[in-house]
Amino acid sequence: MFRARRQIRFADVDPAGIVFYPRYFEMINATVEDWFEHIGYGFADMIRRDGYGVPLATIEVDFKRPSELDDWLDFTLDVKALGSSSIQVDITARCGEEIRLIARPVLVFVKTEATRPVRIPDALREKIEHYQRGQA
Amino acid sequence: MFRARRQIRFADVDPAGIVFYPRYFEMINATVEDWFEHIGYGFADMIRRDGYGVPLATIEVDFKRPSELDDWLDFTLDVKALGSSSIQVDITARCGEEIRLIARPVLVFVKTEATRPVRIPDALREKIEHYQRGQA
Amino acid sequence: MFRARRQIRFADVDPAGIVFYPRYFEMINATVEDWFEHIGYGFADMIRRDGYGVPLATIEVDFKRPSELDDWLDFTLDVKALGSSSIQVDITARCGEEIRLIARPVLVFVKTEATRPVRIPDALREKIEHYQRGQA
Amino acid sequence: MFRARRQIRFADVDPAGIVFYPRYFEMINATVEDWFEHIGYGFADMIRRDGYGVPLATIEVDFKRPSELDDWLDFTLDVKALGSSSIQVDITARCGEEIRLIARPVLVFVKTEATRPVRIPDALREKIEHYQRGQA
Repeated sequence: MFRARRQIRFADVDPAGIVFYPRYFEMINATVEDWFEHIGYGFADMIRRDGYGVPLATIEVDFKRPSELDDWLDFTLDVKALGSSSIQVDITARCGEEIRLIARPVLVFVKTEATRPVRIPDALREKIEHYQRGQA
Repeated sequence: MFRARRQIRFADVDPAGIVFYPRYFEMINATVEDWFEHIGYGFADMIRRDGYGVPLATIEVDFKRPSELDDWLDFTLDVKALGSSSIQVDITARCGEEIRLIARPVLVFVKTEATRPVRIPDALREKIEHYQRGQA
Repeated sequence: MFRARRQIRFADVDPAGIVFYPRYFEMINATVEDWFEHIGYGFADMIRRDGYGVPLATIEVDFKRPSELDDWLDFTLDVKALGSSSIQVDITARCGEEIRLIARPVLVFVKTEATRPVRIPDALREKIEHYQRGQA
Repeated sequence: MFRARRQIRFADVDPAGIVFYPRYFEMINATVEDWFEHIGYGFADMIRRDGYGVPLATIEVDFKRPSELDDWLDFTLDVKALGSSSIQVDITARCGEEIRLIARPVLVFVKTEATRPVRIPDALREKIEHYQRGQA
């Protein structure tokens, strides 16, 4: 299973000494970005070369425990559902065994000039399905 | 009703030309911050002087339509439920009449040295209830 | 003279309680963005419609005094030199009478597909010169 | 010599497709943070435990060439001068052999409750001097 490791840095931490939550969404976004690269369709190709984008339709996040400066978090990504133009994933961040957050974004595949959902291209669909099969 | 107006700036926009969603969470956070100031308990008092914090327990966001550079968004805040140590609000961002997003965060009132929920102080509870009564 | 007013918010402040300096550069960038809009050539036109950009060649910043949560800062902009493809400005941030920082960026006018300097268009040059004449 | 490697991600890139310069300052700050950890005095100890901070007095940056999505940058740090309460460093970012930027920050050692310069503690001074001796 895909795993991205990130350390909480000074820039991520608020005056109360814990992660400022908008920074978690940068980490969630970076996890999605790293995952697309991992399955073989990085953002440089997807967005800059091919003119696609993957904005969010919805997201739900459950913040289980706060994270502090220098904590190392492991982000994992599970594909939950693959629609004709949407991809629903679960992203879990753990510090050691402790779950820090679970995020459930629904990504929509769009042509960036139109910002309307388009069918996920077959070549990408196969990459995602390949990852899904390896999940278990 | 409380309303915060923000313009989408260059820093908020991704290479696809629309708001990079982690930036929406900074706007959502700033809306909460401005609202606390509006009801008379700003973050300088709450966090720096009194040692409280309002991290999120959960958040759900429904992204209805993308926003572009220079769009002016109006953020409104509705108190949906006031628990003994939690505050559930709805934040809606509109551009003109068009709804761009609806966010449903649940804030938890904590003592920052403990990061455990504490009872919302009566003085703050009264300010929030006062705002709630004026909502309709 | 052009002046942009900004309040220091929770997102701008580090665990030590003062502005995290990378956030100052967002404010400096936003001041430049607001100034271009002020003189009649906003980024939506310049960047998105016309395909220009204004990256920095160099910047020098003198941080005079720290800024804290809720401080209101006034950013002013002085055009110091207008070259064939570069614009040198002084940006000063004050809280009341107290100078907090002075930034001296040199902007380069580029075609974004080429990222090489191009001659500043005459229509823009006139707007900047018009602003310069009004500076004193 | 200390070297920190970072990849340019989607969050760092502006609508023109190159790094949005305020993000470079986060990378510069993170390089300083990683370097302090490297020499044995990380920010968790320095800032959170011991109550020190290292805000900037000044910074000069020379942006040599733009960076793009997915570029890998190597940040190196050279100690140029070590005063009684200030540390002057050169930070260079390269992509392969190509220099992308040179930043020259002057850090000031402060007690965070006072935000006034204090003498760099001897134990830290020795760590920095040790690093300096190994630079060549």
